[in-house]
Amino acid sequence: MEVTRTNFKDSLSTVYSAIEEADFLAIDGEFSGISDGPNVSALTNGLDTPEERYMKLKKHSMDFLLFQFGLCTFTYDQAESKYVIKTFNFYIFPKPFNRTSPDTKFICQSSSIDFLASQGFDFNKVFRHGIPYLNQEEEVQLREQYEERRSQSNGSGNPSYISPNSNKGPGSIPEEHREYIGRVVEKVESLFTTSEKTKGVLCDDIMGFQKERYIQISKVDDEERKRRERQKQEREQEELNDAVGFSRVIHAISKSGKLVVGHNMLLDVMHTIHQFYCVLPEVQNTHHLYMNTVGFPSYDTAQEQLHEAGYDAFITGLCFISMANYLGTFLTPPRAHIPSQSKLIQPFVNKLFLMRIIDIPYLNISGPDLQPKRDHVLYVTFPKEWKTSDLYQLFSAFGNIQVSWIDDTSAFVSLSQTDQVQIAMNTSRYAESYRIQTYAEYVQGRQQVRESQGHSTQSWDEDGWVKPHYTSPSTVGAGPTGYSYGHNRRSGPTSLGVCGFDLVSLGVCGFDLWCL
Amino acid sequence: MEVTRTNFKDSLSTVYSAIEEADFLAIDGEFSGISDGPNVSALTNGLDTPEERYMKLKKHSMDFLLFQFGLCTFTYDQAESKYVIKTFNFYIFPKPFNRTSPDTKFICQSSSIDFLASQGFDFNKVFRHGIPYLNQEEEVQLREQYEERRSQSNGSGNPSYISPNSNKGPGSIPEEHREYIGRVVEKVESLFTTSEKTKGVLCDDIMGFQKERYIQISKVDDEERKRRERQKQEREQEELNDAVGFSRVIHAISKSGKLVVGHNMLLDVMHTIHQFYCVLPEVQNTHHLYMNTVGFPSYDTAQEQLHEAGYDAFITGLCFISMANYLGTFLTPPRAHIPSQSKLIQPFVNKLFLMRIIDIPYLNISGPDLQPKRDHVLYVTFPKEWKTSDLYQLFSAFGNIQVSWIDDTSAFVSLSQTDQVQIAMNTSRYAESYRIQTYAEYVQGRQQVRESQGHSTQSWDEDGWVKPHYTSPSTVGAGPTGYSYGHNRRSGPTSLGVCGFDLVSLGVCGFDLWCL
Repeated sequence: MEVTRTNFKDSLSTVYSAIEEADFLAIDGEFSGISDGPNVSALTNGLDTPEERYMKLKKHSMDFLLFQFGLCTFTYDQAESKYVIKTFNFYIFPKPFNRTSPDTKFICQSSSIDFLASQGFDFNKVFRHGIPYLNQEEEVQLREQYEERRSQSNGSGNPSYISPNSNKGPGSIPEEHREYIGRVVEKVESLFTTSEKTKGVLCDDIMGFQKERYIQISKVDDEERKRRERQKQEREQEELNDAVGFSRVIHAISKSGKLVVGHNMLLDVMHTIHQFYCVLPEVQNTHHLYMNTVGFPSYDTAQEQLHEAGYDAFITGLCFISMANYLGTFLTPPRAHIPSQSKLIQPFVNKLFLMRIIDIPYLNISGPDLQPKRDHVLYVTFPKEWKTSDLYQLFSAFGNIQVSWIDDTSAFVSLSQTDQVQIAMNTSRYAESYRIQTYAEYVQGRQQVRESQGHSTQSWDEDGWVKPHYTSPSTVGAGPTGYSYGHNRRSGPTSLGVCGFDLVSLGVCGFDLWCL
Repeated sequence: MEVTRTNFKDSLSTVYSAIEEADFLAIDGEFSGISDGPNVSALTNGLDTPEERYMKLKKHSMDFLLFQFGLCTFTYDQAESKYVIKTFNFYIFPKPFNRTSPDTKFICQSSSIDFLASQGFDFNKVFRHGIPYLNQEEEVQLREQYEERRSQSNGSGNPSYISPNSNKGPGSIPEEHREYIGRVVEKVESLFTTSEKTKGVLCDDIMGFQKERYIQISKVDDEERKRRERQKQEREQEELNDAVGFSRVIHAISKSGKLVVGHNMLLDVMHTIHQFYCVLPEVQNTHHLYMNTVGFPSYDTAQEQLHEAGYDAFITGLCFISMANYLGTFLTPPRAHIPSQSKLIQPFVNKLFLMRIIDIPYLNISGPDLQPKRDHVLYVTFPKEWKTSDLYQLFSAFGNIQVSWIDDTSAFVSLSQTDQVQIAMNTSRYAESYRIQTYAEYVQGRQQVRESQGHSTQSWDEDGWVKPHYTSPSTVGAGPTGYSYGHNRRSGPTSLGVCGFDLVSLGVCGFDLWCL
């Protein structure tokens, strides 16, 4: 179902009940761009830490617009043993609703716009018919504006008006208008002396050249006044609801507490919070639920529909169902249907897939992040003229290397064997044009800065991961190259051997579950 | 005529000859927004100096996209005594043309987008079919890229390839691929021993799963090689032309030296230079031609077409013709047709209308700007809690005032009578919460900063304008409230008594002529 400003209000109850009855939800967003600074390969450096990745996206991705939001609800029908699916495709645009409302500016990135255009994306639907929205702060402000205006109009008892003979006040009345305004004042004053209940005075010739503007003055009794005030309040509440717009759908998803599934959804989650809720928190303070699974066979789909957010959400949900059921095959006896509320799903909740990071599978938003040792990684700084080939040449004695550029003058270089790190360090000791640090030294240097800001240090675990400071029934898996998965308590994220599953052009490699 | 990426190349010769044969051109642009910082009333403060206005627009307007460019050419047919008109409506979008090309980011302002949407603007045409462009620097860079690549492919004599048995080099060959690559090398080597002139080797199974990719190797003689190089150069030149895209139209307009007419065209001119030429210069360094006229009776048009750039350019040109001919009625004997090359037009050239500034009619881009005395204006600083009503109260003793906000803590206050300025200054002497300066003091303060940067001071002329430092046959008119116009040498910009002519929603009030 396609939802725009035109049919939003009429569709809302359908959307609400679809969310209410669902077992789980799948979402997907389309954005006006990805990065306003570094190019995509710098934005998604293969050796980013989860925190670095989050901070980079927060800094460089949030000024783009999430302008299409796909929602697909999945409800399991026990009798039929199948899912009932409802798909919604929302077009989003921050149309200013009045003169004082926020006039949002957002960035567009040509390559992203061009990509969506090539997929047949309908920009006219977004810009002409997109549903408006407010974040929580804007909603509060607007509510206060309405309340202030209401208390003002109720409060002041004596109306003040400008005497036609006065020369003072905020603006004096020009000579040529005095007679006319005098007549209007007389008309209004006569209303107070008449016994009739309601009477209208039309001053439609105040601005002779603007025929469509007029002022109507009515005299009403107390009952009528209250009825009109009630009406006005209802109208204002409706205006407020219209302005909050699409954020109401996000509120409903959040309130439902339902599991939310996405693919490579870090950006979707961040945009959803940023655009419809509030300023994004520091990564340490996020308190949302999430799950990450990978490994799903490829599938045939109608190509034309891909990259429509609603369709992508639908596909994502289908993938999740298959993966959840796949977990069921490990049970004794195997189970064909694994519901989204199953304990088997729990270890994956609140772990957001990190695109292009080889050795950290997810960003954990309900606990500390994993930190691999990376003791085969070197941090190299060099003159800005250097290219990848210079790095290959420098390390040519050490066999295959992998270069992850950080910026113009620094990169991570991963050696294939850890025992070569010390040799590389020794040979570089007297180099003048470049400088090499071990990854541990590099992290320590950054840590010192962070410690001075009050963050705690972390210790290395035996299996190559930093020990988390929290205690939890499910701790992390068996190491950076694979994760054990079983029915015992030591359950954790599973890669199930299939990585590099590519759903969108940016090299998406994972599926995420998340609860607002 | 509507011109998109689809028909751009085919239309170009039509556009070129329309420009070539024209007597004058009218242009108009549509943008994705106006201000990324201050709201419109702060951006267009009524007491801006031309330099301030220019600097504000340079800072806050240039990151928006000029995405529709209207061009209307007007050619006078002497025999028929009428103009032949050709209208072009170009859709513009910086589609990246390859992986290394600039990935332009631009801002959209919701209110502007919403306004254009309400006028039926076709965003799909822009984003799906917009014509790309490059500025001069980007064009030079791309040309250099092509030349570098060409010199590389011509220069190195000995081709280098990876031996299938080698373990070294930028990447070693995995064991399982060695046999296959060995076979390919054999095939290529056999080409050197054969006497046949041309032979292709298809290596289409290199990537078994990517059937559409293959490498073709041909053996050619010298003549064939040269023919192919020529072909390649021609193809590259065409690619370069395609990338330069719409900028070629702007180059043609510039090269033609024709008079360019616009309405309220300061932003159009700035965007045109910024987007299709180069970084905008400091206001002092601009060297282009321009003209400003105001005062034209209102007209009836098909409302639906307004705010399509091509139609707006057409209307602008019609207005110019009428205004030029109106100047002809002052001649003895009166003349019905005044050509755009007429001397009567010259005084208006290169003077860009300044929106919402009451006492400076234009920004002069081929000479020093006018600077009214503004000796009835006070510069007031105050706590940020103050509102307009606080200023009205403060100056209530001085009759009508006009407030022009600068920022949260400062504003210009114009008094109705100059002799009250000293009284206001005296009464404020011991005030603590606010501070008043005369406009002259305010300018002097800013001047001191500018002088230290090497700018010269200017002196006041008798009629209230700062004396320009340049000598010119036509100097400025009679004062800030009206301009004399005649057939003598003291010709200058004329307001002809009609101001507030409103063509677009932002309160456009003037017509501009300009030569690139």
